[in-house]
Amino acid sequence: MSEHQSRLDLFIDRMVSQRACLDYAIARTAGQSGPVFELGLGNGRTYHHMVHHVQDRPVYVFERAVASHPDSTPPNDLVILGDVRETLPASVARFGASASLVHADLGGHNREKNDVFARLVSPLIEPLLAPGGLMVSSDRMYFDTLTELSLPDGAVEGRCFIYQR
Amino acid sequence: MSEHQSRLDLFIDRMVSQRACLDYAIARTAGQSGPVFELGLGNGRTYHHMVHHVQDRPVYVFERAVASHPDSTPPNDLVILGDVRETLPASVARFGASASLVHADLGGHNREKNDVFARLVSPLIEPLLAPGGLMVSSDRMYFDTLTELSLPDGAVEGRCFIYQR
Repeated sequence: MSEHQSRLDLFIDRMVSQRACLDYAIARTAGQSGPVFELGLGNGRTYHHMVHHVQDRPVYVFERAVASHPDSTPPNDLVILGDVRETLPASVARFGASASLVHADLGGHNREKNDVFARLVSPLIEPLLAPGGLMVSSDRMYFDTLTELSLPDGAVEGRCFIYQR
Repeated sequence: MSEHQSRLDLFIDRMVSQRACLDYAIARTAGQSGPVFELGLGNGRTYHHMVHHVQDRPVYVFERAVASHPDSTPPNDLVILGDVRETLPASVARFGASASLVHADLGGHNREKNDVFARLVSPLIEPLLAPGGLMVSSDRMYFDTLTELSLPDGAVEGRCFIYQR
């Protein structure tokens, strides 16, 4: 953490960057018909933003247990319940390489734990993306075949990452 | 909620406005020696920001139970544990009208409940402020003798409020 930034500063940078990257990725994949995957729902703020802006594509939510704000609770048939270590591999069989956009905010306070988890889930996410599909993450991911893109205006370097298949 | 804003948009506006109002209020009260009161600690992000920027004044935290991030946990002697409906009146006896700055982020998802709570705690906060002291809140408060100030640059109208004794 920077000496000059408070945890509030870092958090604001992360949320602003997440929104900038998501808005950019939603617009850039607008021509694709494949589903959008949100990994982790939390209280549902980011999901609420995504369904506000994603047109003509279903937004599926991967979550262990839904505990979101009532305004931001996805319909049952778009929730994929369970541990992503199991539900992501199962989704390769169900969806194939069809996702137009995958978003993940692993979101823990512990940077090392987040990194371990990012290394674990990266190879599980990679086969779900359609050619041209984008992955937006608040943590650095570890992909073999995806290309890291430059961040859009408004996003802060290191606070968000975009990858393209 | 605006039709055009997502919950993520509103949340970012609230956090950015909170920071802008706090930075402004900390600078404006820098010449005062009275304590700073943070009502509610949560995970401690805002407290972390305040202790980063407040010089030469103790920052007391009012909280029912401390459950903050390890980086942002206040020293025991600066924590006032308990329900604010009891600890605020007890603090009038202890501190008098001496606070240079009081910050509250009532922070619930339910706007009506926040408003009920704001009406309840406003008269408990009012007698703690020193003359010239400021109160920063994420919700509209209900004070008899304080003056609402204009928001500083960077804050969004309705997302934060500043009052002066």
